[in-house]
Amino acid sequence: MVKGQEKKMARKKAKNNGAVEKKLVGVADIVITAAERSKDPTLSIPVRSLANVTFDEKRGMIELGRRKQARSFFNVGMAKKFMQTVLVADALAELQRADLTTSLREIYYRTKHTIKNSHENTFDGQNESDPLIEDLEVTLAALREELHVRAENSGTVVGPVVFTDDGDRVDCTRLGKGGYSVPSIVEPEYIQITRCTADFVLLVEKGTQWNRLSEDKFWRRYNCILLTGNGQPPRGVRRLARRLHEDYNLPVYVLVDNDPWGYYIYSVVKQGSINLAFESQRMAIPKAKFIGFSSADPDRYGLPRNVGIKLNDKDVNRAKELLKYRWFQKKEWQEEIKRMLSIGLKYELDALANKNFQYLTKTYLPRKLKEKDWLD
Amino acid sequence: MVKGQEKKMARKKAKNNGAVEKKLVGVADIVITAAERSKDPTLSIPVRSLANVTFDEKRGMIELGRRKQARSFFNVGMAKKFMQTVLVADALAELQRADLTTSLREIYYRTKHTIKNSHENTFDGQNESDPLIEDLEVTLAALREELHVRAENSGTVVGPVVFTDDGDRVDCTRLGKGGYSVPSIVEPEYIQITRCTADFVLLVEKGTQWNRLSEDKFWRRYNCILLTGNGQPPRGVRRLARRLHEDYNLPVYVLVDNDPWGYYIYSVVKQGSINLAFESQRMAIPKAKFIGFSSADPDRYGLPRNVGIKLNDKDVNRAKELLKYRWFQKKEWQEEIKRMLSIGLKYELDALANKNFQYLTKTYLPRKLKEKDWLD
Repeated sequence: MVKGQEKKMARKKAKNNGAVEKKLVGVADIVITAAERSKDPTLSIPVRSLANVTFDEKRGMIELGRRKQARSFFNVGMAKKFMQTVLVADALAELQRADLTTSLREIYYRTKHTIKNSHENTFDGQNESDPLIEDLEVTLAALREELHVRAENSGTVVGPVVFTDDGDRVDCTRLGKGGYSVPSIVEPEYIQITRCTADFVLLVEKGTQWNRLSEDKFWRRYNCILLTGNGQPPRGVRRLARRLHEDYNLPVYVLVDNDPWGYYIYSVVKQGSINLAFESQRMAIPKAKFIGFSSADPDRYGLPRNVGIKLNDKDVNRAKELLKYRWFQKKEWQEEIKRMLSIGLKYELDALANKNFQYLTKTYLPRKLKEKDWLD
Repeated sequence: MVKGQEKKMARKKAKNNGAVEKKLVGVADIVITAAERSKDPTLSIPVRSLANVTFDEKRGMIELGRRKQARSFFNVGMAKKFMQTVLVADALAELQRADLTTSLREIYYRTKHTIKNSHENTFDGQNESDPLIEDLEVTLAALREELHVRAENSGTVVGPVVFTDDGDRVDCTRLGKGGYSVPSIVEPEYIQITRCTADFVLLVEKGTQWNRLSEDKFWRRYNCILLTGNGQPPRGVRRLARRLHEDYNLPVYVLVDNDPWGYYIYSVVKQGSINLAFESQRMAIPKAKFIGFSSADPDRYGLPRNVGIKLNDKDVNRAKELLKYRWFQKKEWQEEIKRMLSIGLKYELDALANKNFQYLTKTYLPRKLKEKDWLD
């Protein structure tokens, strides 16, 4: 069965690669077609600025608007950038043909050359090639992962889920405490979810808490998938949570520190981010819940004030910014953030160790889950 | 068989826990014994400064010298620190009794209390508790891992090796591209190497190259274990490489960027670090080899100069420091570093992508291995 699934996925992958390659080759074709018609080759690229970002209340997602920008070849200010865009598209097409993935940095190196009969480089720094890859993502409506651009593995998962990765059956109930290292690209063509009997996904901000929960086999007692991205969850971790949510109807609970950065991490998982608004449709989980650490928790769980950390100016300013975001307008969220500001303290999840080393696993989370004490 | 091994390890773990607990309880006992004898309780702690670090030429390791420092209870300047040391030892003993692991940060929180009838805290910041844990490591001659103090999982491994982790059999040839997430603590009581048929270990500095090699199944063609720590390898990754080297006689090849930081990463794997000199005996791999990126490689592999990065002042100063270290005195190493300085460029491994995306897997490493082109 796994073998059959594998073959099916290989076919699907080849088909997808073909489709994406066609789009990428199309970028170069614009030049040829325009030249044949003696026209100015032009790319029409969606604008990726804050002004072109909206929050869709109904769908609960941050989305990219419709504004576009023309990039022309016969425009002195745009010619180099146009040429660079074609070079990047060409390198990305090479990846599709060879069925390889690579990093942003390697694409920069791959496309860097000294232009013939000159001392000028095609690219002087990665800061020139990165935005072009994002341009191509939005222009061609292809996720970075579909363009075969990866970051590093930086998430970990354990729990009752089985993946198929390169034909291997990876059973995440049988990987000890260590767990499976979540690849950067978890699109269905790469990683298949073969089986999943969990009741929910617990997405934990920091590795420390994930380790505590994994060591205590929390996933077994509460039949859940433990997922972490060691900080702000990387794309692979977000996509995996989204796929588990979507394909298996699993609720996703997000566990973060009680500070403005924790709130923001939660909001990125839920609504998507401003910078990458065009990806929300594939990454955001509008039904994700905030399970803690809430500014009401220190009182509720009897944590002493001396394990709180005084908010600094940066924290206060960031919290005030969050208060203004459209997606934090719900009454409970305004209360949550204002409570933190009025107490003047932030709390790390690590502070629960002040009670005892297993307080998170044995008291805090069980009570949270039992009382359904989360924010939407 | 795995079951029998598991039981044996559980017994070994319980025994070790007991031994370490005894050492830790001994710290508190010093106070009691001294009080009974009306003496000043005193701890004798090895000095962890550069002045007390030596390089043992014969063993090829950086080691801690014999200088010790007394910490007395009835000394105005030392009393608080003495009390804090006992508190930390007490928390660490709790970990042993409960057979739990935790983080440096959680130990800080666990031991933080307001002292009775005062407004003073036992600890004001983690910068007060961390050094005490290191003090206890050296004083009790117990690795941090044996004290059950962990960091985050931050390494990844694939290849022909089977681990037993919490009774699960983790076969690293069957974990797709993603691989097994290396726990922070890989001591034999936690992770057993059940089977290993590899010919060598390739320890890769960065995740990008590890991903390339994993995607291309390099480990299968060259029968090796691919290990990365995503940057400076964390303790778990170093310990795992050391165990594979020691228990299975595997050569360890280190692949890093061509810059002073890459050289230093290699030297830490090989000789140990100055800061943690007391751990070299359990962590260092004096026979580790530097397989690249060498300052001779850009020429040898025909990389254009424009993918090199100009050395900045910090790079140059660091390189000059390295030239003076006792463990970089070999002729080939002096040449290697001086060559980089005279060229004035550093190179990332990512730059190999300038040739083609699989140059690392298909050309660079195969030729390196065939020509045995490494530095000792």
